[in-house]
Amino acid sequence: MSWFDQSIMARRAVARGKPAASHSITEATQGKYRYVYGPYADPVLRIQPGDVVACETHDAFEGAIKHETDSPSAILNFPYLNPQNGPIYVEGAEKGDCLAVLIRSIVPRGPQPVGTTVIMPEFGGLVSNGATAMLNPALPERVKKLHVTAEHGTVWNDRITLPYEPFIGTIGTSPEIEAISSLVPDYYGGNMDLPDVAPDAVIYLPVNRPGALLYLGDCHAAQGDGELCGVALEHPTVTTVQVDLIKGWTLAWPRLENAEFYMTIGSARPMEDAARIAYRELTRWLAADFGFDEIDAYMLLTQCGRVRLGNMVDPKYTLGASIKKSIVGTIGG
Amino acid sequence: MSWFDQSIMARRAVARGKPAASHSITEATQGKYRYVYGPYADPVLRIQPGDVVACETHDAFEGAIKHETDSPSAILNFPYLNPQNGPIYVEGAEKGDCLAVLIRSIVPRGPQPVGTTVIMPEFGGLVSNGATAMLNPALPERVKKLHVTAEHGTVWNDRITLPYEPFIGTIGTSPEIEAISSLVPDYYGGNMDLPDVAPDAVIYLPVNRPGALLYLGDCHAAQGDGELCGVALEHPTVTTVQVDLIKGWTLAWPRLENAEFYMTIGSARPMEDAARIAYRELTRWLAADFGFDEIDAYMLLTQCGRVRLGNMVDPKYTLGASIKKSIVGTIGG
Amino acid sequence: MSWFDQSIMARRAVARGKPAASHSITEATQGKYRYVYGPYADPVLRIQPGDVVACETHDAFEGAIKHETDSPSAILNFPYLNPQNGPIYVEGAEKGDCLAVLIRSIVPRGPQPVGTTVIMPEFGGLVSNGATAMLNPALPERVKKLHVTAEHGTVWNDRITLPYEPFIGTIGTSPEIEAISSLVPDYYGGNMDLPDVAPDAVIYLPVNRPGALLYLGDCHAAQGDGELCGVALEHPTVTTVQVDLIKGWTLAWPRLENAEFYMTIGSARPMEDAARIAYRELTRWLAADFGFDEIDAYMLLTQCGRVRLGNMVDPKYTLGASIKKSIVGTIGG
Amino acid sequence: MSWFDQSIMARRAVARGKPAASHSITEATQGKYRYVYGPYADPVLRIQPGDVVACETHDAFEGAIKHETDSPSAILNFPYLNPQNGPIYVEGAEKGDCLAVLIRSIVPRGPQPVGTTVIMPEFGGLVSNGATAMLNPALPERVKKLHVTAEHGTVWNDRITLPYEPFIGTIGTSPEIEAISSLVPDYYGGNMDLPDVAPDAVIYLPVNRPGALLYLGDCHAAQGDGELCGVALEHPTVTTVQVDLIKGWTLAWPRLENAEFYMTIGSARPMEDAARIAYRELTRWLAADFGFDEIDAYMLLTQCGRVRLGNMVDPKYTLGASIKKSIVGTIGG
Repeated sequence: MSWFDQSIMARRAVARGKPAASHSITEATQGKYRYVYGPYADPVLRIQPGDVVACETHDAFEGAIKHETDSPSAILNFPYLNPQNGPIYVEGAEKGDCLAVLIRSIVPRGPQPVGTTVIMPEFGGLVSNGATAMLNPALPERVKKLHVTAEHGTVWNDRITLPYEPFIGTIGTSPEIEAISSLVPDYYGGNMDLPDVAPDAVIYLPVNRPGALLYLGDCHAAQGDGELCGVALEHPTVTTVQVDLIKGWTLAWPRLENAEFYMTIGSARPMEDAARIAYRELTRWLAADFGFDEIDAYMLLTQCGRVRLGNMVDPKYTLGASIKKSIVGTIGG
Repeated sequence: MSWFDQSIMARRAVARGKPAASHSITEATQGKYRYVYGPYADPVLRIQPGDVVACETHDAFEGAIKHETDSPSAILNFPYLNPQNGPIYVEGAEKGDCLAVLIRSIVPRGPQPVGTTVIMPEFGGLVSNGATAMLNPALPERVKKLHVTAEHGTVWNDRITLPYEPFIGTIGTSPEIEAISSLVPDYYGGNMDLPDVAPDAVIYLPVNRPGALLYLGDCHAAQGDGELCGVALEHPTVTTVQVDLIKGWTLAWPRLENAEFYMTIGSARPMEDAARIAYRELTRWLAADFGFDEIDAYMLLTQCGRVRLGNMVDPKYTLGASIKKSIVGTIGG
Repeated sequence: MSWFDQSIMARRAVARGKPAASHSITEATQGKYRYVYGPYADPVLRIQPGDVVACETHDAFEGAIKHETDSPSAILNFPYLNPQNGPIYVEGAEKGDCLAVLIRSIVPRGPQPVGTTVIMPEFGGLVSNGATAMLNPALPERVKKLHVTAEHGTVWNDRITLPYEPFIGTIGTSPEIEAISSLVPDYYGGNMDLPDVAPDAVIYLPVNRPGALLYLGDCHAAQGDGELCGVALEHPTVTTVQVDLIKGWTLAWPRLENAEFYMTIGSARPMEDAARIAYRELTRWLAADFGFDEIDAYMLLTQCGRVRLGNMVDPKYTLGASIKKSIVGTIGG
Repeated sequence: MSWFDQSIMARRAVARGKPAASHSITEATQGKYRYVYGPYADPVLRIQPGDVVACETHDAFEGAIKHETDSPSAILNFPYLNPQNGPIYVEGAEKGDCLAVLIRSIVPRGPQPVGTTVIMPEFGGLVSNGATAMLNPALPERVKKLHVTAEHGTVWNDRITLPYEPFIGTIGTSPEIEAISSLVPDYYGGNMDLPDVAPDAVIYLPVNRPGALLYLGDCHAAQGDGELCGVALEHPTVTTVQVDLIKGWTLAWPRLENAEFYMTIGSARPMEDAARIAYRELTRWLAADFGFDEIDAYMLLTQCGRVRLGNMVDPKYTLGASIKKSIVGTIGG
């Protein structure tokens, strides 16, 4: 029996984690990609809980950076960055519910070199930027175009090949009345750039609007903790997710579950606030669903909580805090 | 001759700072107040550069907190907070232009006690909150309803009366494609809660959309630096502004000018990033328009720059950095 | 009657704020200047409460930067920076007491140009530095030597002269067992770089060791809020202070009083933590000594507290939070 | 052949990583434990490079918390916390050198229950504290005394036993002229609370003084990332280290090597500054010793760097950034 059969999604969601109808969102059916997470765009697809959707995602630059001689700052047109598939309307979802999204697969698509990463002026974790604003001169721009396959990974240079460890960089639901840039992560998900949002994981997302309005995009072929220069191994993919609905489970922030752990995800600046959010959510989760009193949970996480840094470059930094199932067991298990 | 005749607005704006037609936005003509700064709402008014607009602003709670026995957490309905007048469409404004807004007057309106301030759980500068998330128990809620007049100020208690020092807490233009909560300050203005945005000052705002789409609201009868508990002396007002347009003056962040100083305004977390933004903008302004080289400007601001803390409670903290006209003279003067 | 007669120092200190014996610490009697605040150096002077001490302070570079063609990075020898006078042993001071230091005068000394400011690599508020570590190239070094007099101020260039607004950049007591670099500000004072520590103000400092062990130095001829590039108008002075002792007044952080306001001072990173410290101390002070309940004090400071940014460049950032005496009256008044 | 034979310590250090004489520091020979990292205490031991030292470490409370009914706030006497063994004088070490410390073993000592963790007021990552100063009421104090053995780990309760994953919480060299509380982590090491400082790892520490003056203590039986409540599984141990010396290898911050990765360690607030420090050091290390240009290294770490959060509770937060040897190979390999 797979861990998934014991997952919260499989136990509590409307479709009990069983895959139902299959859909796809191709470049053609998506039409115009989306650059904000909000309620002001018409859904590109309406689905039932349990439905499976295969999305043709673009890379974060919508394919505009084609050559290593390209200048990202000349080509890119803020705020039209980080194109998203969606929104997907999930029937029955209402404010206060939870969307459960099982990531089934991510595979690269398109002609090689399919991967792109770049250095841009005034963007990244170790350079002056729009928020941590310095007077220092910028680094020079640089573009790397990379051969990426699911089988062999990413060929960095003739000595180094990185394994293919794909994940969804940006995924979330619509805020209730706001429309937020797809560059931003927040309580509804968004641009978390957290490598655990990977195949064989379930992400749980708060529903803020009727239909939830799910967006996703920005898949990475691999990424280090923090997404240091701000641009991971960006690549277009077919990303397949199974979407389910947990009625009445009201989350303040996204959560995630995989075979090994339960995780809560916080996004904020400074970085310690992201950690506080994630760990407070995890503390409260242990208290609510795992039989701890809150202070016990706080003390236990001190001894065995784990932290994954998603990004240290986006408008908010993202951290996941987790605890192993081998320590706390499974909910209801 | 008033300082205003030498202002950037009077020298460079389309209407040369001369008042043109007068308009008003009453509660009735506003209809539904707005809770996001964005392009998805229809304008309530279209004006020409130079026009004067008198707005009936609500307090930040839209008048919902009426008694000192009220419970803010029971009454308030996030995200429907901080109601804004607007949007106002300014003819001729295009992305890359600058909106110049002279604040002509702010007067309280409505029956006494017209002022309200409150302590709410999980909100404020010295308590656990949604971003700086702690496990500590909350403070008790508290509401104060206060008698406020322009003539006598705010009666805090039988010993203390605070002078009436009104300003606009929230003012700004629409982002290009985002719709951001009116609780947030950012590059387009918004909920800066900066006491210098007061009568006899001009605020300069970036234009990101055709028509600029000006919003304003959230006037305070007075406020300390930082708006410590998160809620100033909130009160409904008639706020009158004169709106002009400077073509081709592209600002990254809001700027402000009054009789005494030039100011740049940054909003970010952590607070030092707000200070960096504000001071970098001011450094670059001195270099661009006042005849300094950039390093000279940086060195001079080290000796005589001034900082005003707007808020330390909103989703981004706001700081203004300024230099006195008595030191640098007036632009073109 | 001067405000000082109503000061806490004049009301509560051992010598009632009355000047007693006069002493001086010259370059010769100081001998080796000090680069740490700690208990491991022998006192250079022992005084009684009420005694007045005139100190020959060095500039922050100990006079080593003599010409505009000098290279600070080549000359300066970390950690031997920011030389301090002291320690001064105050008879009767014990852990848990408070040292009250009235700043009586600061006057420049030495041959012109007496003022120095510089740009150094990897130091300052708007450049990559050792803590906010970036990969960007450094700005070029620059030295300015400046004519400074008490009468005419600082001649910046042929258009700009800055008024002489001197203050003590670094002043404090010894920690109990630590010896901390004089570049650091913290709970015992130190390198706060706060312009309110100026003539006609009293700073109140926690005593952590027998004799308190007072240090001071680093006087500035003027400074902007934040000390932006990290180096103010550094100059050698004769600085005269009157030192008194308040038994049993145990402060967590420095406080300050002048004719206009009461201030609490916090030093921390990020900057909002410095603000939190300062405002929490001020809230508690109002509750302890001014007849407010703590939540009332918190609400009142929201409406009328004032913030002064000392530095945004030192190992901890320093902020003062204050409230006007015209609002809260004087203690015991 | 063990990874250690290819380590920097084994290749470059004076004793080539070969164990020489053995020493021990017992409670008796240590005498008074140390609470600051500084040069003002006499060495308790003088060793040659290559020597092995077995230290009887105390727990962070020096054994003062004996019962679950104890009140930590009543018992603990700041700043006399986190007792350290040392200083150990290493012959031949000079400023600019590097101390290489191989952690050979950590074993619990003393009568059961040997483990202690506590909740204290105003201390910890999810509560108001002295730096992130709030007005909220404190959590109640709580003490847990825990049975800890190397064989079976830590018995948390009747359902949960945590594996014994010991490491050294606090280790470092003396600053040049400062004496810093053993509660603080910084460029010289100190209270990093980083779980990778574990048996079979080598930590590389900057030498700032003749003899280096090595201190260590504060061993934990296990710890979650961030040491959330501020107190890990504290326990007294016999900790055995082998100390070697790399002449002329001048580090700005500690580094670490084990079988799997190379790591750089940064400590700062806010947390992103700790991450910046660690990643900048790692970027520069890759550029200096692994044949990358600096921008290449920055781009590569974006794709495969790993971050470990040490603490989010100490006066500075600590993060380690690492890259796997399977990606970059071994230096000189």
